[in-house]
Amino acid sequence: MRSELRAVRTGGVPSVVDLTDECAAFVDGAGDGLLQVFVPHATAGIAIIETGAGSDDDLLAQLDELLPRDDRWRHRHGAPGHGRDHVLPAFVPPHATVPVLEGRLALGTWQRICFVDTNVDNPGRHVRFSFLPG
Amino acid sequence: MRSELRAVRTGGVPSVVDLTDECAAFVDGAGDGLLQVFVPHATAGIAIIETGAGSDDDLLAQLDELLPRDDRWRHRHGAPGHGRDHVLPAFVPPHATVPVLEGRLALGTWQRICFVDTNVDNPGRHVRFSFLPG
Amino acid sequence: MRSELRAVRTGGVPSVVDLTDECAAFVDGAGDGLLQVFVPHATAGIAIIETGAGSDDDLLAQLDELLPRDDRWRHRHGAPGHGRDHVLPAFVPPHATVPVLEGRLALGTWQRICFVDTNVDNPGRHVRFSFLPG
Repeated sequence: MRSELRAVRTGGVPSVVDLTDECAAFVDGAGDGLLQVFVPHATAGIAIIETGAGSDDDLLAQLDELLPRDDRWRHRHGAPGHGRDHVLPAFVPPHATVPVLEGRLALGTWQRICFVDTNVDNPGRHVRFSFLPG
Repeated sequence: MRSELRAVRTGGVPSVVDLTDECAAFVDGAGDGLLQVFVPHATAGIAIIETGAGSDDDLLAQLDELLPRDDRWRHRHGAPGHGRDHVLPAFVPPHATVPVLEGRLALGTWQRICFVDTNVDNPGRHVRFSFLPG
Repeated sequence: MRSELRAVRTGGVPSVVDLTDECAAFVDGAGDGLLQVFVPHATAGIAIIETGAGSDDDLLAQLDELLPRDDRWRHRHGAPGHGRDHVLPAFVPPHATVPVLEGRLALGTWQRICFVDTNVDNPGRHVRFSFLPG
C-alpha cells in the first residue's frame, strides 16, 4: 500500500475543496486497485458530488439546516456552534473508497472527490491518500 | 482486483433497488476479501438497510423531509427540485465496502445492499462491483 | 485478510460505543493495509467522531431530530418509533475503512471509531473487524 498525507487549504471558512485532480495524479500509472481517501480530523468529511453547478454551496447551506450552528450542542469548545462540526463526520464520513482501473479513477462524469470542512477554526487541514493494489 | 460495471433499472422514479443477490453472485467462489460497491453517478448512493418491511419507502420519504424537493437549491438543471438529488451523495455515499468470507458476503440477517436514486430524470443507471482479494 | 467478529454491549439504550482501542489492538503489528469495520445489523452504523467532549450525546440527540422516533415510519416492528432505527444506516453507514501504517491506525488526534446504535430492543450486538494487507 502506498500512502501519503497531503495538506488542504480551507482558509478558515466552511469549504468544499475539490481533491479529484490530486487523487487522479496520485493513482496515475498505479494499475488496478482501490483508492482510499481519509480525513484525519474530527470535524471534516469526504463527499463525492458534482461541483461547479452550485451543489457544493447547496451542501454547505443544507448542513446549516440539518446541523444548525446554534447553542444546542453539548460540545462547547471553539467558535460558537462549533459543536455541530463534530457531529458532521457521522453523516459525511471522513473516509471514501474509489475503484481504480489501469491507473485511472473509475468515477462518473460529474463526480468529484471533495473535502468538506465546516470548521472555521482551522484554515489548514490534511487528507491521506492510500492506494491498495488489487 | 476483479471489477464489473452493471446496469441498474430505476425506471425514472425515486428508487431503492436491492442489489444483494447480484453482489452475492459476483463474489461467489471468490475466497476472502472486500467487495466494494461504487455508483458512478452524482445523484445516487448505496445504503445497506433492511428491505421488504417498509424501510426502503421510509428512507425515500425521509429524504424528502431532510432534502426537500423545493426551490432552495442553487443547482437548477433538470426536473424541479433536482438540486437536492445532487446533495444526496454527501449523506448517502456512492461507495460501500462489505467483507467477503469464503466467497460469501458477511452481511447480517436483515441487511441488503441497495442502490438509492431519487433522480427522476434518468431511468437507467449503473453500478460497479469490485472484489479485492485479501 | 484477517477477519474477526466481536461482541459489543449497548445495554439496550441508544449508544455510541468507542471501539478504537479494540481496533488498535486488532491491527497491532499488522504492517500496512486497510482496516475495515463492519456492522452486521440493520439498525446500527459506524461513526468516526470525537468522544469525551459531548459529541457522542450530541449525535444521539441530533439523530432524534433528524430521524424522529414517532409514528411516521412504515416499518412497525419492535418498540414504538423503531422504524427510524432502520433508516439510520443509510445516513450513518455500517461500514468504515481506516488506513493502517506499520500496524497503527492512521487516525487524527481526536478521532475515535464508534459503534452507533439507537435500537433499544437488542442489548448485545456484533461488529466485524477485517484487515486487508496492502
